[in-house]
Amino acid sequence: MPRGRFITLEGGEGAGKSTQARLLEAALRAAGHPVLRTREPGGTPGAEAIRGLLLGQGPYQGPWDGVTEGLLHFAARREHVVRCIRPALDAGTWVVCDRFLDSTLAYQVFGQGLSRSAFDSLAGITLEGLRPDLTLVLDIGPAEGLARAAARGETNRYEALDPDFHARVRAGFRAIAAAEPERCALVDATAAPEGVAAEILRLVRGRLAP
Amino acid sequence: MPRGRFITLEGGEGAGKSTQARLLEAALRAAGHPVLRTREPGGTPGAEAIRGLLLGQGPYQGPWDGVTEGLLHFAARREHVVRCIRPALDAGTWVVCDRFLDSTLAYQVFGQGLSRSAFDSLAGITLEGLRPDLTLVLDIGPAEGLARAAARGETNRYEALDPDFHARVRAGFRAIAAAEPERCALVDATAAPEGVAAEILRLVRGRLAP
Ligand SMILES: Nc1ncnc2c1ncn2[C@@H]1O[C@H](COP(=O)(O)OP(=O)(O)OP(=O)(O)O)[C@@H](O)[C@H]1O
Ligand SMILES: Nc1ncnc2c1ncn2[C@@H]1O[C@H](COP(=O)(O)OP(=O)(O)OP(=O)(O)O)[C@@H](O)[C@H]1O
Ligand SMILES: [Mg+2]
Ligand SMILES: [Mg+2]
Repeated sequence: MPRGRFITLEGGEGAGKSTQARLLEAALRAAGHPVLRTREPGGTPGAEAIRGLLLGQGPYQGPWDGVTEGLLHFAARREHVVRCIRPALDAGTWVVCDRFLDSTLAYQVFGQGLSRSAFDSLAGITLEGLRPDLTLVLDIGPAEGLARAAARGETNRYEALDPDFHARVRAGFRAIAAAEPERCALVDATAAPEGVAAEILRLVRGRLAP
Repeated sequence: MPRGRFITLEGGEGAGKSTQARLLEAALRAAGHPVLRTREPGGTPGAEAIRGLLLGQGPYQGPWDGVTEGLLHFAARREHVVRCIRPALDAGTWVVCDRFLDSTLAYQVFGQGLSRSAFDSLAGITLEGLRPDLTLVLDIGPAEGLARAAARGETNRYEALDPDFHARVRAGFRAIAAAEPERCALVDATAAPEGVAAEILRLVRGRLAP
């Protein structure tokens, strides 16, 4: 059985990652692929329990030290990769993941000052070389993305952080896309959802030939 | 103000770490030192929340992947070091800690197969060079230690693991003490509590000259 393909959706708050993950799942299914749509942090019972700690839903509401926050994100990712993503790919299932490694790089390293060398060590320990086949970086101005997210109703801890933080995160995602053009594609996320979805499908067809 | 001294108590199940931590705290106080007695995993609200996940008290009862378990132990340790241990030492307080870094080395690396290189990376990221001034490794045969722990009433997840695991943990602690004789002292933990406490006080006086 051919290995499945691993596609991640990345970008700042309200960029449209969850919306596009759903649309991409539907398009891949329509093309005949088995698809697992999942998200981070979370995706397994253990990882969801860690997500609860990160979002302040447990007995401790935070804030976490920046290094602790990185360790917890990688702990959740380890569970997700070992028990969910890798077995699915091995079984020939395509995996569409709403946030992955690059969110930790953009939010914790570019945004909050976790060191790049700590990030690289943690990625090595956690992923043992696994990388997405294609990463779609949804790019939008932080103000516009935050307004979309606010209009949606729920808010989270990151959305409340200052504008400088969100500017660093956006710059981080753009730097990641520029540094790894073979894996990543920067997608203009300001268009209507159907327009963004069409561009994403074009990229998936061109790069992964489904 | 002189920096406080950092003393850790290590060893397998039922070796007498918690008993000796209390006795050592009392002796150091009697000698006029301000003392913080604490334990791992835990010691701060965030670290205690992570401890709950490790012990299966949250929404997920485990088991955790071995690497995840290592990441969670270091996440708890990071909170403990940054918010509790380091500030106390800086304020001139002596810190007596019931389990620390060597328990992760003995249990996760020697016992459960976390790689030594992952352990070393995580220790570097988490501790940024902090090490105990003195580590007392309480040595006892696993059968005797487990029998003591069982007689105490409560049991934990590790105690239930097979005899081979506990033999690897004991061998691990002995190897650590042999590899770092300047920092560590191996203490015969089969004597009566008062005898062990006297030997520990002798070591503390000899090595740290309180
Ligand atoms: N292309 C778009 N144009 C306008 N609104 C959009 C577009 N895509 C998504 N939205 C709306 O913006 C809001 C945020 O979208 P979505 O939840 O998909 O973003 P997200 O990137 O997953 O956000 P978060 O980072 O908070 O998870 C939703 O209300 C969604 O319906
Ligand atoms: N030197 C000793 N001789 C006999 N019994 C002891 C001795 N020290 C402690 N005990 C008893 O053995 C039991 C385990 O001791 P203690 O809780 O101090 O061990 P521990 O190393 O902290 O164990 P754990 O790893 O489970 O935390 C307790 O009931 C304690 O009273
Ligand atoms: Mg979303
Ligand atoms: Mg104890």
